[in-house]
Amino acid sequence: MKKRALKEYHFFPKHPLIAIMKNIRLLIAFDGTGFNGWQLQPDAPTIQGEIEHHLATIHNKKITVHGAGRTDSGVHAKGMVAHFYTEKDITAPAFQKALNSMLPDAIRILAAKEVDNSFHSRFSAKAKTYHYSLFNGEVIMPQERLYTLHVRSKLDIERMQQCLDLIIGTHDFGCFETTGSRDLSVPCERGSTRTIFDASLTNNKIKYYIIAITGDGFLRHMVRNIVGTTLEVGLGRRSLKSFESALFSKKRSEAGSTAPAHGLTLEEIFY
Amino acid sequence: MKKRALKEYHFFPKHPLIAIMKNIRLLIAFDGTGFNGWQLQPDAPTIQGEIEHHLATIHNKKITVHGAGRTDSGVHAKGMVAHFYTEKDITAPAFQKALNSMLPDAIRILAAKEVDNSFHSRFSAKAKTYHYSLFNGEVIMPQERLYTLHVRSKLDIERMQQCLDLIIGTHDFGCFETTGSRDLSVPCERGSTRTIFDASLTNNKIKYYIIAITGDGFLRHMVRNIVGTTLEVGLGRRSLKSFESALFSKKRSEAGSTAPAHGLTLEEIFY
Repeated sequence: MKKRALKEYHFFPKHPLIAIMKNIRLLIAFDGTGFNGWQLQPDAPTIQGEIEHHLATIHNKKITVHGAGRTDSGVHAKGMVAHFYTEKDITAPAFQKALNSMLPDAIRILAAKEVDNSFHSRFSAKAKTYHYSLFNGEVIMPQERLYTLHVRSKLDIERMQQCLDLIIGTHDFGCFETTGSRDLSVPCERGSTRTIFDASLTNNKIKYYIIAITGDGFLRHMVRNIVGTTLEVGLGRRSLKSFESALFSKKRSEAGSTAPAHGLTLEEIFY
Repeated sequence: MKKRALKEYHFFPKHPLIAIMKNIRLLIAFDGTGFNGWQLQPDAPTIQGEIEHHLATIHNKKITVHGAGRTDSGVHAKGMVAHFYTEKDITAPAFQKALNSMLPDAIRILAAKEVDNSFHSRFSAKAKTYHYSLFNGEVIMPQERLYTLHVRSKLDIERMQQCLDLIIGTHDFGCFETTGSRDLSVPCERGSTRTIFDASLTNNKIKYYIIAITGDGFLRHMVRNIVGTTLEVGLGRRSLKSFESALFSKKRSEAGSTAPAHGLTLEEIFY
């Protein structure tokens, strides 16, 4: 009963102004290079911080932007979704134009539209797709270096695909969760269980690869920990068997290291 | 007779050490974003300056790196070629490794090989290909912003291709040359006449376009001036007829503005 009430709070905020408030949904892309991730921090540049700063200028008061999830420092996005409430008589496209004229060009509002008050960028999300970009060769093009992990040693691509096949489905991904990080204010009956709908490794252009992972939700550092462990297999430092037993162990200590942030892009969120 | 002697100087330097010197050819890529172009400058970061700085460390004396051409401040390269002479007993691949470990990651040596002493990156070049990247839409992906010109107003792509068709062949490109810039120490019977082998506009992915121009040589700002004038036609601010008469006029004042540097990449040099 209590859980249900909590959920309702998120979906239908009982704010007295809600009846005259509009809910604006933003589709956001950013180059995470100079930012300390999505989430607002008092003394560091963050995506949420930048957007809230300019919305405050427009509204002349603090406006909270609710993101679909936090991205780590240095992670990029082509399809982040967020929403905010406003009582201003400004259309969604006008918000998009205004924000794009104010934001640094490393952050772009790709689209904005007015949505039902019940829409919540985080709780309404059904699935997310992340891409992790790899270059496997001696010298990486400088133009790719900000968005792609450079791996010099030869990778066993087939073996890496086999790792990714193992994570498809519903599993307890405890071994890929950086601990002490879950937001316990959110009801979470599922613990560290998530469903991965698809995980694949494709050869983009010569020596460039993309690991694409789509799931109903991701634990903190989950994609980067999956990629880091998969890379250990690709480099021959870990067997496929060891990858599998790490997954079944549910213990973080059994899995591999966290792949660097700059290779990761939040590609799309499905509602 | 005098001309010929000058040419010979370039192809067969009569340096007393030449017999024991090796000629190392470098294939170089760089992200031009933070640099003041290729050419050495005393007080600004340049690509030549960075490479010479590290070659000086290796050789414990100044080593001149001869580039195939100067690129403007902010222009990128995926296929710049340069050469230098060395008496060091270091192999070309070892030079590549050493330089890549010392250079900032915005500059990469893609390949290095020992070549005949007669090879000169500039005078031996037969053709060069430049790419100019355009995005024609409302909001550009932040990840593309450093390497692509953002044009918001709708472009007439067909009309732009017709401009590019006009420049193919051998013409006096005086109208596209930024004046006061030609290196008069080099024998140049051809004046501002150059041959363009190919010039095309291709749709890369949705709303992204590449103008690719291959020619036997380029005047200063020539590609950027061609692109700037072609864009004026694409935006309906200039007729195709006006583009053509600018070309025939050979006068800089008849052609359009110089397109920004960051959209331009030196793609390949042919020998």
